Amino acid sequence: MQTTTGKIINQLRLDDRIEQLSRIGRIVETGVCRLALTPEDMEGIIQVRLWMEEAGLVTRLDPFGNLIGRLEGTDSSLPILMIGSHIDSQPYGGRYDGAIGVLGALEAVQCLMEQGIRPRMPIEVIAFCDEEGSRFNKGLFGSRGITGQLEEGELEREDKNGVTRREALQAFGCAPEQFAEAIYPAGSIGSYLELHIEQGPVLESLDAPVGLVTGISGPLWLTVTMKGVAGHAGSVPMGMRHDALVGSAKVIAAFDDMVREEPEAPTVGTVGSLSVFPDSRNIIPEQVSFTVDLRDMEMERRNRLEGRLMSLLDDVSSQYGLTYSLTEDTNSEPRYCAERIKNAIRSSAEEIGLPLPELMSGPFHDALALSYVCDYGMIFVRSKDGISHHPSEYSSPEDIALGTEVLYRTIRQMCSPEVGE
Amino acid sequence: MQTTTGKIINQLRLDDRIEQLSRIGRIVETGVCRLALTPEDMEGIIQVRLWMEEAGLVTRLDPFGNLIGRLEGTDSSLPILMIGSHIDSQPYGGRYDGAIGVLGALEAVQCLMEQGIRPRMPIEVIAFCDEEGSRFNKGLFGSRGITGQLEEGELEREDKNGVTRREALQAFGCAPEQFAEAIYPAGSIGSYLELHIEQGPVLESLDAPVGLVTGISGPLWLTVTMKGVAGHAGSVPMGMRHDALVGSAKVIAAFDDMVREEPEAPTVGTVGSLSVFPDSRNIIPEQVSFTVDLRDMEMERRNRLEGRLMSLLDDVSSQYGLTYSLTEDTNSEPRYCAERIKNAIRSSAEEIGLPLPELMSGPFHDALALSYVCDYGMIFVRSKDGISHHPSEYSSPEDIALGTEVLYRTIRQMCSPEVGE
Repeated sequence: MQTTTGKIINQLRLDDRIEQLSRIGRIVETGVCRLALTPEDMEGIIQVRLWMEEAGLVTRLDPFGNLIGRLEGTDSSLPILMIGSHIDSQPYGGRYDGAIGVLGALEAVQCLMEQGIRPRMPIEVIAFCDEEGSRFNKGLFGSRGITGQLEEGELEREDKNGVTRREALQAFGCAPEQFAEAIYPAGSIGSYLELHIEQGPVLESLDAPVGLVTGISGPLWLTVTMKGVAGHAGSVPMGMRHDALVGSAKVIAAFDDMVREEPEAPTVGTVGSLSVFPDSRNIIPEQVSFTVDLRDMEMERRNRLEGRLMSLLDDVSSQYGLTYSLTEDTNSEPRYCAERIKNAIRSSAEEIGLPLPELMSGPFHDALALSYVCDYGMIFVRSKDGISHHPSEYSSPEDIALGTEVLYRTIRQMCSPEVGE
Repeated sequence: MQTTTGKIINQLRLDDRIEQLSRIGRIVETGVCRLALTPEDMEGIIQVRLWMEEAGLVTRLDPFGNLIGRLEGTDSSLPILMIGSHIDSQPYGGRYDGAIGVLGALEAVQCLMEQGIRPRMPIEVIAFCDEEGSRFNKGLFGSRGITGQLEEGELEREDKNGVTRREALQAFGCAPEQFAEAIYPAGSIGSYLELHIEQGPVLESLDAPVGLVTGISGPLWLTVTMKGVAGHAGSVPMGMRHDALVGSAKVIAAFDDMVREEPEAPTVGTVGSLSVFPDSRNIIPEQVSFTVDLRDMEMERRNRLEGRLMSLLDDVSSQYGLTYSLTEDTNSEPRYCAERIKNAIRSSAEEIGLPLPELMSGPFHDALALSYVCDYGMIFVRSKDGISHHPSEYSSPEDIALGTEVLYRTIRQMCSPEVGE
């Protein structure tokens, strides 16, 4: 561990809040199930709101279900510096994903106030509603909401029990008919900052507690279906087969090789889900569907790989006498962090002597939605074993405190006359 | 189509019986659902029993649920010539699988009697109980029953509704307490003949209506589980992954290549079923389980391939940092048809000028159980598109008649003083 100079943030207060919040919706020993717009989510919001008010922020729950704590600036007409993340969780989730970004933002701003620093621009600490998307199968709800990016029919999406998002919002005391006026006008948010756990193994492998995010890579999500001919596993000679699983296996193996070709590139490609029909041990697979997740910080390289995947599908299909079809489920472009914010984060880390490796974010965050309306920056905290979306997700109190200290110092720089928006 | 000399069997009577039997338990347009020991199965047995009696056979339903029609020989002390198959079906099955072997045997023997031929040895036409095994998940029940091959606990196996096989047999009027005395004493069955649809595409590809089976290949059934490390699809760099699906894909693709190496060999290898955990599009697969079905007429080659599969699993696991485990679910040896019976079938086909390609049987048949107590021979009838275990299963009346004619002539040869047992 690197030596760092003394921290200004209150690590004990931060640890205590993380611990208290993790008890709401706790599952197994160390896990959390706090699905969006459920009673557990509301209990979490009530708790965080109390802490925001203790700190002296003016709070509100907006029509999208976002909890917002505001600190006025010396010039309230300046664009807002927004800082936050989310407190909803995966169904079998951990205690750090999202939570440290909300509580870290609160700690940083509370610390700013305690230090007697009055920001130029207004600061808003925000806990976005339903980042995870687990309940209604579509996430980033609150962050897309305030930035005017919701789509047709989102309020009619149902959870497993047939409850629509509209009903869940209303039960939460939110009024969907007020959405229009709750969207932040263009230009009203100047910058967005988010502290988050890495959810991957890069920082751990570099022995670094904290990292600087360069951007959020844009995933391309495809679903591929390869179709052959079923037949009895005992009676169809090898030369007469059209085995959809053998073809799919060739594609999956070759795609993995292809993505690894540039070991220094941040490119990642994954086949995470696959199903076989009829899925019987003595029947040759007739049809196989599998997902493709391809991410990169460079669209050109990602597009090139997508093109090669198409050629691969053509070649393998013709080799094995298969047909294939393909749907594009998501196609997001990479979104880069702002240079001026990265510089502020870098110099904040330097102040405390903290090395700050740079890495991209594979996963989505609320920052992705914000990136379409303002500059943004992100700070990652090391994840033990790279695990996330699981009760065994862990980041040490010391690492979280270091990330929060960097966040605090970044905010301090950004809201002072010299650097701020 | 080859020219063949006139047939002796009564094709109209045979077609009519196949058609009538297919109406019992009919599903969709052309399918059959006649699960073992159900009311539909009983209705089928009553119908076939009536036809057996019309033909002049002496019938009985044995304690295993087998329907047997007996024709005495001139020397009743000689070992029996048994001929048959089954009339139970798959839940979403076809009308030919099993049925043509029972009705073909009946037609052949009825024809023998009509021709005034009195066999030396007794002949028994048999419809075995529960060849398919769909209801209690274990097949060849009747044929294993009369040959003393039932295992502990088989009577306690339950169907989906919790009905045990014992209860189902009792409801059928069969008495499990009489099993011991219903087993055929060693040496009492001299030969077994079975006519069956091919359930594969080989005869169709050779433009041949009928084929001579050389043996039933022994399947080796394995279940392989490869285990890696889960992780977010966006955040774990390629070089740090232990992706269980990529490893499995390499194994499946390389195994297929390996089985194809000798294009003239009857070796077949299939991965029919595969499941991924956690099976989420943005999580790197932690665990993949898949089945392996490997069949060959030569045990030595099959064993060699099994050994190479193990090396492949070792290599791929070490390459991708995976572990694997393996269970052996079934390990049957190939069972060869008797030369003297194959010769009788060959010369019968020659009599009518019918070319008779030879092929192995990948699927099981009742003949497999019989092979442990007597010589056996099998005749295959061409299957349209190689399809079976499906309502679209089809073999033409002409092909079935040709197969039955060969069966008739084989029986005639075998029961005459010159050739018979």
